Parts: sequence; C-alpha cells; structure tokens
Amino acid sequence: MKQRIPLEEAQEIVKKNLPDLSPENVILKEASGRILAESIFAPMNQPPFARSPLDGYALRAEDTRGASKDNPLKLKIVSRIFAGDRAKEPVNSGETARIMTGAPIPEGADCVIRQENTDRENDEVTICQELRPGQNYAPAGEDIEKGELLCSRGTLLRSPQLGVLASMGLERVEVRPLPKVAVITTGNELQALGEKLEPGQIYNSNNYLISARLEECGAKVTASLVAGDNKEEIKEKITENLPGCDFLVTTGGVSVGEKDLLLSILEELGAEIFFWKLGLKPGTPIVCAKLDGTIIFGLSGNPAAAVITFDLLVRPMLVEINGFEHLNLKSSRAVFVDEFNKSSRTRRLLRAVVVSSPRGEIVKLSRGRQRPGVLKTTLECNCLIDIPAGSPPLESGQEVEIFKLPEIYNY
Amino acid sequence: MKQRIPLEEAQEIVKKNLPDLSPENVILKEASGRILAESIFAPMNQPPFARSPLDGYALRAEDTRGASKDNPLKLKIVSRIFAGDRAKEPVNSGETARIMTGAPIPEGADCVIRQENTDRENDEVTICQELRPGQNYAPAGEDIEKGELLCSRGTLLRSPQLGVLASMGLERVEVRPLPKVAVITTGNELQALGEKLEPGQIYNSNNYLISARLEECGAKVTASLVAGDNKEEIKEKITENLPGCDFLVTTGGVSVGEKDLLLSILEELGAEIFFWKLGLKPGTPIVCAKLDGTIIFGLSGNPAAAVITFDLLVRPMLVEINGFEHLNLKSSRAVFVDEFNKSSRTRRLLRAVVVSSPRGEIVKLSRGRQRPGVLKTTLECNCLIDIPAGSPPLESGQEVEIFKLPEIYNY
Repeated sequence: MKQRIPLEEAQEIVKKNLPDLSPENVILKEASGRILAESIFAPMNQPPFARSPLDGYALRAEDTRGASKDNPLKLKIVSRIFAGDRAKEPVNSGETARIMTGAPIPEGADCVIRQENTDRENDEVTICQELRPGQNYAPAGEDIEKGELLCSRGTLLRSPQLGVLASMGLERVEVRPLPKVAVITTGNELQALGEKLEPGQIYNSNNYLISARLEECGAKVTASLVAGDNKEEIKEKITENLPGCDFLVTTGGVSVGEKDLLLSILEELGAEIFFWKLGLKPGTPIVCAKLDGTIIFGLSGNPAAAVITFDLLVRPMLVEINGFEHLNLKSSRAVFVDEFNKSSRTRRLLRAVVVSSPRGEIVKLSRGRQRPGVLKTTLECNCLIDIPAGSPPLESGQEVEIFKLPEIYNY
Repeated sequence: MKQRIPLEEAQEIVKKNLPDLSPENVILKEASGRILAESIFAPMNQPPFARSPLDGYALRAEDTRGASKDNPLKLKIVSRIFAGDRAKEPVNSGETARIMTGAPIPEGADCVIRQENTDRENDEVTICQELRPGQNYAPAGEDIEKGELLCSRGTLLRSPQLGVLASMGLERVEVRPLPKVAVITTGNELQALGEKLEPGQIYNSNNYLISARLEECGAKVTASLVAGDNKEEIKEKITENLPGCDFLVTTGGVSVGEKDLLLSILEELGAEIFFWKLGLKPGTPIVCAKLDGTIIFGLSGNPAAAVITFDLLVRPMLVEINGFEHLNLKSSRAVFVDEFNKSSRTRRLLRAVVVSSPRGEIVKLSRGRQRPGVLKTTLECNCLIDIPAGSPPLESGQEVEIFKLPEIYNY
C-alpha cells in the first residue's frame, strides 16, 4: 500500500482505474445540460422548403418590373397558403398567392411582398414597387443545410442546441453518462439536523456538503447515509450501496486514531488499496481503494480537508466521465495580496478568493481560519492557492499557483 | 392597447405587474442552487465545544515545562475520549486523556500532543517536548461564532453554504420562489419529433428551445404543449393551464397574418393587453397581456425572434422573482470586429459572440444568418449587439453596446 503520495500520482492511479461507463441514449428534453457523446450532422435542410418570412403575397419578381405609384401593378390572387399548408397551385405571370409567415412559397413565385405594402380589393392585389428575385424569400436550408455539422462531440447541450436538434426532428441523442455516487459520512459524533446536540456531538454537515458538491459536479447521488464508528455498520452500508453506484465517497475514519476504521474495513472486505494519505495539507488523511470494480474515496472527516481533496481528486475524475470540463479546476497564477506567515513543510492548499483587477488576477485568503476542521473558509472560496512543500511564508505581492474552482462558485 | 413600444417601456410595464410570489420554505437538501430569502445568523458555536483537531493526548501545558528527550515527562492516562463522547473526567496535573480527532477536550487540559510524538506503555504516556497552552486545541466557535452572519439574504446556496447551515443544525431555510411557467407553441406547421414531415411542415423546435431556456433561467416548466392555428384549441389550452402557472409563454400567431390569432383570442378571453409589438428587430411581433392575474408572453414563432425577446423581456422578469442575478443579462460595451452592412431604421439586436482579448472585449457576429427564422445563429451566441434605431452600417473597430448572456452560454 502506497502512503503519503503526491497528488498527481494519486490522480494518475485513479484515472487509470476509472469505471468504463457507456454513453446514455436520452430523449431530447432530458439532454438539456448534458455533454454530447457524438457529433451530429444535419439530416435535412431547415427549413425543408422555401418559405415566406412574413405575411404578404408571393409573386414573380419579373412581373413587378416598372411598377410604381404612378404605374401600379394588379395581380390576381390564385391561392391562399398558410403555415403548415402544402403549396399546391403554381403562381404564373400576372398571378399572386396570399401567403402567411412560415408558409411554403409556391412554384413560380420567387419573392414575397409584405402585406403592409400592398392594397387589396377582393381577389386582386395592387403593388406599387419593384421586387428583386429572392426578396423576402427564405430558401430551403436558409437556417441549416443538410449535411453540415450541427454540434460536435463534447458540446454542452443548452437551449440553442436543443432547439437546433429538435428542428432536425431528432428525438434522442447520445450523451456522456452521469456517474452515480453513494455518500456515507461516518462518526459517532454526528447528529441529524433538527435533533438536539448532546455534549460531544456536532451536526452532520459533511453529508450536505459532500452530496451537494457531488451534484454540483454533475454526479447523481444515489444514497446519502450516515454510519457510527462501528465496523459492522460501516461494512454493511458499504456493501449494500456498492452495487448501485460508480463511486462511493465516505468521510471520517481515515486518520491514525483508534476509531479510524475505514482502512481496516476496506482491507477486510478485500478491497485493493490504492493509497493511504496524500502529501497535502489539509487533506493528508484519505484512503483510496477499489472494491468490486467501484472506486472508494475515503475522505477526511474534517470538512475543509474533505472539500479540498474532493476538488483535487474526486472532481477531476467525475469530469473525466461526464465531460463537464467547465466544472473542473483550472490551473492558473495570481498575485498574492494578503498575509500568510507560516512556512510549509508539506505541500499546502489555502482556501482563497481570486478576482480580476487592472493589474491582472489577485488572490487573497478566504474569510475564516485555514484549519482543516473549519468550514466557513469555503464559503467565499473560489480557488486554492497551491504552496509547494518546503516553501517559506508567503509575501504579499508574490506570484502564486492557484487552482480555480468553476465559475459557479463565483456567484 | 399600446403598439410598437420601446423595450424599456415594455420591461417597466411587466415589472409593475409581476405576480407577488412568497418565499418558499424548503428542507436544506432542496435548497441547493436556490437564493436565500432571509439572512441567517449563527444560532450556536461551531464546534459547540473545545475539541481536538488530531489523534493524541490532552494535557496541561504547564506540566510539560522543561520536558525534553533528556528529561522525559510521564503522564498517567486517566480516560479515553472518542469523537461523539462526553468528556467526563477532568485532567489534573500529572494526568492525560487519550483523545481522538473531533473529541471534546476535557476540563483541565489546555493542549493536545500528537500521538506520533509520544511513547505509550500501558496506561502511561511519555512526552519529550514542551507544549504551549492552546496548542492543537480547537476552541468552541473556532469555525463559527454564535451570532455571526453566515449567509445574507440573496446568497446563492452552493455546497459550502449548505455545509455551513447544516453545521448549525438548520433543517429548513426560506428561499426565493421558482416561477412556474406553461409553454404553448402554436402553428399548423408544427410536427412532433420522430414523425415524418409532410410538405409545408417543420419540426416543433420552439417547444424544446423555449422550455429549456425557461429552465436555464430557473423557471419550473409546468406544461409544454402544442396547439394548431385554431382559436378554440388555443383558448382551451390557455385557460386550462393558466391556473397552475405564474407565467404563460406562447410562440406563434402574434404578427399581422390571417392566422395570427393570439391577440384576438386574448381579447376575447378578457385579458388586459399590455402591448402588441416592440420597436425591435428581430422581435417586433410579440403580445404581452395579463389574464386572471397571470402574465402571458406571446412570442414570435420565428425562433430567433422568440429567443431574443425572451432574453430581453422574459428572462429579467424571472430573475426579478427567483433572484438568480447571475442568470440575467448584463449591459456592457465591446469593440465590433466583423462586418455588418445594413443600416438599422428600427432598433436592431444582432446575435454575437463576445470574447476577452488583450485590448479588451471584442465582439463578432455568431455563425449563421441574422434572420428571425434562423436558429443556428443562437448556437454560439453569448451576447446581443444592441444597435439604436437610425444607425448606419457597423464599422469594424467601432464600440457597440451589448447585452451579455449569462456565463452558462459560454461553455
């Protein structure tokens, strides 16, 4: 069993062991917000036929040559075509078809005059202007031409993409799968919300924190459970929930104390232990293993340590599967404009806030203490400052490496 | 009935007539992604008691004075305290308590030594270093102090907020309501996805486009229907769906053609017509009315016109109710770096793409035609260029006003 390995090594190990989930074939309405797993080319023209973009009269442009207020042209209305109609009658010279927005332009006609620019009397319409062929005429394929690339593999499907795919009549699309994750927070100290805290107890905030964070990464949380520091109870909850999920995330029980049971539980269950502990602060205590093909992330019970290792290790793996690149961390650099007086023997991550300024991106510490058990500091956190092992205290004005959290944490 | 009014006047009218929806009281898990309707102050300290941040031994710092490898200190283990335990026994001079991460620090002890830095034999532990009072000691309120502001009214609740609120034991919170919206797309030409297109028909893409866009603005789509160009059918679908929704959005039937039925239907139903037509292109044809207290937006059947008026008029009204400011349009300016040769008699909105560049924000037209019936141009559109009425063609390099779409359309 590897111990206290670098983050990047841990990421590599997990990445090599990711479950191989197939794309999902979903109906179009359910594809909203998903990532396309296939490239889609237009199976048809849109519109499929030449149509009128407005309410008016379809006619032959050549008929209007010389037409003016002084030389009005009278055309005979030979048909009326509404949107949804088939255009049956052709338009011959001297004729016109009353036509509504979206209706097919009949054979023979090559332009449409806006009804506000005409005078009508019974079945005759008067036109006092010349028209060009193609004027107010939306040709077949004006919007989309058959065969063109509509959306490439990897596209995030939002309303415009759904609209375009719907306009092609496509009922179903292949999208990247959403990994299913079960959450088990462990600890005798955890009390349910709404219950009275007994001495020594705290509320089970990790369950809310981790479940919501999973969903923010596009995971489906299949179960959200709590277990006491009891081997049998934890074992049972793991083995019961393992078959229904692609990942299992636990919190608590992964350090060196006498009730840090997770490592031995996983060993007893026959899991392959990838590693125990990371060379990170906060976030040293973590177990990562694989049992019956499912990866288990045993995160720290300290909420900030849990969130930080979640973001550095669990988040990128979820994104690897669901394709939500916009929800991944982004490496960047920023100028540190705050105080941090500790030197860092171990690699250290600080919860921080990065903002744009006229001189580039600047970063300061989040409000709250930087201890692993402190959750408040995550409230305004939109990035992590990455301090290499062996660094002296930070100086205001120095450039630092940061991992930016996704945009959704900026609001 | 007002006609062809400016956008800003239309926005004012609708804003004055918005339904007055009460905040929702939801359980914490359901509050994820919602906007807080109340400010929340900490009802308690977190942690509620002084606790150990690590696995070790709780003791009195003064006992360690002078302790070193040459002068080891031996302390008697008088109790073992796990997370979740009540700390019963006080620690007196010469004594220590075995203590695990998260466990309450017993009376008398004022620091904790990490277990890795001790030697233990039976019920005695040997310490070879001095400790400071408060060392490895997480005081009550270390994370959150009773009475402090946790989340102010208007906060978007993400996982960190849920975690913090859960740590306070708060089961329920008041959040801004999500407006319920019914969608009716109208038109004889509309065919359902997966069916064969008959001549003159197109697929009903507006339904997908508008329903998904509503959900992207945080609305709940209560119904998503289609109706032919038939007065009775449209009336029936409006009156059936009106009671269950806060807004009703239709597409089609709002221009000047013979099958543009919506305006007369609304009049016959006794609706108060706020206005018909906007001084905008695309997007001139639109009806806005109020029937039985519910606002009805009758958008154009042309998809681009529908999306543009949706974004300018419907989106801000939804945000006004649900508080999702990050989903609203933002006015900005950018340098136009493309070609657009038409002059604009009417105020014109162009679908465009804005990107940051070293010289500031630059904007170019989206791929596709700018016609109202063309949907493709919305695919990469992340902003609208706002060209005032009476403007000449745009020149590359000129500064233009833009409405930026929310960040979600940037991915």
